[in-house]
Amino acid sequence: MSLKALDYESLNENVKNCQYAVRGELYLRASELQKEGKKQIIFTNVGNPHALGQKPLTFPRQVVALCQAPFLLDNPNVGMIFPADAIARAKHYLSLTSGGLGAYSDSRGLLGVRKEVAEFIQRRDGYPRLTSFLGWLDSGSSATVSTLLSYISLLGGTLVPYYLEETDNWGLDVNNLRQSVAQARSQGITVRAMVIINPGNPTGQCLSEANLREILKFCCDERLVLLGDEVYQQNIYQDERPFISSKKVLMDMGAPLSKEVQLISFHTVSKGYWGECGQRGGYFEMTNIPPRTVEEIYKVASIALSPNVSAQIFMGLMVSPPKPGDISYDQFVRESKGILESLRRRARIMTDGFNSCKNVVCNFTEGAMYSFPQIKLPPKAIQAAKQAGKVPDVFYCLKLLEATGISTVPGSGFGQREGVFHLRTTILPAEEEMPEIMESFKKFNDEFMSQYGDNFGYSRM
Amino acid sequence: MSLKALDYESLNENVKNCQYAVRGELYLRASELQKEGKKQIIFTNVGNPHALGQKPLTFPRQVVALCQAPFLLDNPNVGMIFPADAIARAKHYLSLTSGGLGAYSDSRGLLGVRKEVAEFIQRRDGYPRLTSFLGWLDSGSSATVSTLLSYISLLGGTLVPYYLEETDNWGLDVNNLRQSVAQARSQGITVRAMVIINPGNPTGQCLSEANLREILKFCCDERLVLLGDEVYQQNIYQDERPFISSKKVLMDMGAPLSKEVQLISFHTVSKGYWGECGQRGGYFEMTNIPPRTVEEIYKVASIALSPNVSAQIFMGLMVSPPKPGDISYDQFVRESKGILESLRRRARIMTDGFNSCKNVVCNFTEGAMYSFPQIKLPPKAIQAAKQAGKVPDVFYCLKLLEATGISTVPGSGFGQREGVFHLRTTILPAEEEMPEIMESFKKFNDEFMSQYGDNFGYSRM
Ligand SMILES: Cc1ncc(COP(=O)(O)O)c(C=O)c1O
Ligand SMILES: Cc1ncc(COP(=O)(O)O)c(C=O)c1O
Repeated sequence: MSLKALDYESLNENVKNCQYAVRGELYLRASELQKEGKKQIIFTNVGNPHALGQKPLTFPRQVVALCQAPFLLDNPNVGMIFPADAIARAKHYLSLTSGGLGAYSDSRGLLGVRKEVAEFIQRRDGYPRLTSFLGWLDSGSSATVSTLLSYISLLGGTLVPYYLEETDNWGLDVNNLRQSVAQARSQGITVRAMVIINPGNPTGQCLSEANLREILKFCCDERLVLLGDEVYQQNIYQDERPFISSKKVLMDMGAPLSKEVQLISFHTVSKGYWGECGQRGGYFEMTNIPPRTVEEIYKVASIALSPNVSAQIFMGLMVSPPKPGDISYDQFVRESKGILESLRRRARIMTDGFNSCKNVVCNFTEGAMYSFPQIKLPPKAIQAAKQAGKVPDVFYCLKLLEATGISTVPGSGFGQREGVFHLRTTILPAEEEMPEIMESFKKFNDEFMSQYGDNFGYSRM
Repeated sequence: MSLKALDYESLNENVKNCQYAVRGELYLRASELQKEGKKQIIFTNVGNPHALGQKPLTFPRQVVALCQAPFLLDNPNVGMIFPADAIARAKHYLSLTSGGLGAYSDSRGLLGVRKEVAEFIQRRDGYPRLTSFLGWLDSGSSATVSTLLSYISLLGGTLVPYYLEETDNWGLDVNNLRQSVAQARSQGITVRAMVIINPGNPTGQCLSEANLREILKFCCDERLVLLGDEVYQQNIYQDERPFISSKKVLMDMGAPLSKEVQLISFHTVSKGYWGECGQRGGYFEMTNIPPRTVEEIYKVASIALSPNVSAQIFMGLMVSPPKPGDISYDQFVRESKGILESLRRRARIMTDGFNSCKNVVCNFTEGAMYSFPQIKLPPKAIQAAKQAGKVPDVFYCLKLLEATGISTVPGSGFGQREGVFHLRTTILPAEEEMPEIMESFKKFNDEFMSQYGDNFGYSRM
């Protein structure tokens, strides 16, 4: 009998082969274990702070709640439960819409919020914004990055993987990049785009200015568009390694480069100390993209009609938070600092914890929300994994999950050099639970290493 | 000098050729006119009720506002501005999340809301839901339909256009469909999917049960997946033409068909009497899609991480509105009825208005939010359009816009038979403004027809 359109056998191999490790085998097993209810699962597989107990910031939630319920603004009792600056802000944002949160906005987002984004970028980078340019609002960075990448695939482009240098604080080696691109091109592959995540996921590094310069120069030479995923720009844990935007570095380099390199940068309300993942809001900024191409992107974006409007307001609030003197300023700063400082401490506890384990080495988490320890698996463990039909780090992470409830993502899901193994965890579990989690990890790991023989001659890196 | 990745000349022709009429030339010109501020623009190009003054329903907004501001639930004064049933509902929905509105949900949506959707479908269609199946929540139907269609293109499929029968109340002629598919296949095109919009956009028809049966049989014979866009299922204006879901018709047909036809149905919070377009929430329901394919769709959906959580709650509320006896029931019913009954009257005013114009004929709007009059353009007008380098109905609609501020979408943007011209408007302008809008339309149209010579021998249909 002939196949139907959506029978499994009719599906394209590209779809079947696509892997998405963050919600892959480990996540599915963790969800099963949770359903069985026998084990408490610690979901450190996704950077989802509120799911691990982080409380939302009060002020932005007040503003968006009021925008959802605009009839409250006329209620004589509204001042009893909402501060005056939240009420004023809600009125401000509603005035930027064409019918409140229930109306589609322009597919690039609300013009008024886009202006606030442009001012934020100007304050951050020190360059006056081009009047012709305003960032576009979207419904979260992951959907936008994947749309742009498929857009680039439509152009006949292919993405070529590259490795970060673990011994160089997860920096990029541009010579290696050049080789990868040359090799791909010699195989007839059209390379069109380069993606960097800075601060890094899964690796937690902040790229240095020098490294960013090399990358931009490389993109210019190779005529690549650079997609700069900078969603963790507020998540910085080491003063010596600040976040520097690709846009600023590019502008600092001056003409002709600053007028040449095509750059798209991303930001989101999901990360930072806000962690408003479920709201699905972000922006992207296009630099040196020709106007006619921008028009085409606008046309394609129009098919999805409108980013969600409440998340656009979250983005507006994120780029223009309460100012000194505002009623809500002190509370806002207290809450924000509380979260960021705790993340900083948690980054430290986690790195130190991993580095205290047998056959585990871990770079310090300079930014973002992740720890990416290298697990030096003994040959016997690798053999046991093979027998079980598993990739070695998947084998390790599954055992870790079954033993401790800690749900991680195996390094193989992100790509890693042959014979080297990692896992990714977030630094997001509640601070008070962290010591216990790391203890439970250490206990599991050290037993695992004993079981499979840890004396196999690896030296500490 | 070699091209850069995103130079216009590097873009794929498919992207450049893609047309999206709803936000096309007419919309851009209308936006310009609005910016110039010389003319008040009546945006009837998109079904965006709140942008045209429709007020949001109070109860769902109260619930979502409380979910955004969960700290209010402990505030002793909350009862002064929120009714007790809204407070209870907010607690209910928050209990279904894993960290409130700020946490990513499963990429299929919150399980608890998916159950409410399943119960709604069961009440609507009279079939007990399959325990294995629950609808998936999404961030609006347009993004999901276009993702699924590109998914289907990935399978090597192509979409083949078809026409609706204007003289048969915009029904589908299955013999024509069979011919189109046979012809496409003889040209080596793989046809995989059939899309219907019921109630119809742009045509406003409700498909009859008999017609739906024919369509389902046709999809079965041709092994096509049917995508049933049913976002206007609550927008019904003629009692003799109720909405019937494709799912119900399929189940009524019994085995083997009911177990064979692959069907995906869509719904959204943007339409109905809610009109919550800016919230970006919807669901889709899969029938007879094999579990292994569903797994693949889940994997691909996971890349976007999570539909926005506040919109999921709107969907929950839409499928389980206040019940008789609830504090907010009367107000909810009053508001809902007010909107629906007014839409019904507006549909009537608009159809009658169009039918009173020279060379204009219009089927009655049975459902959805659109009127799709046929404009019988005189040969001289067609000639003038050609001279201006415009498609004839674009020419007409641009003149209409400049003269009256009414922003419509030319029928050519949707596809229409050779030599036949339409425009689409929504029935959404405020009821009290409707007579004036129709008068201004009539004035423009009748003058246009006189100018280009209306005595060219078309007879009224
Ligand atoms: C590098 C990176 N980009 C984007 C995202 C997702 O952002 P959003 O929630 O805006 O889709 C994540 C989420 O973890 C991420 O790690
Ligand atoms: C037929 C049809 N489907 C879907 C949509 C959009 O739905 P959503 O707002 O959920 O993307 C529209 C919007 O006008 C529509 O007309």
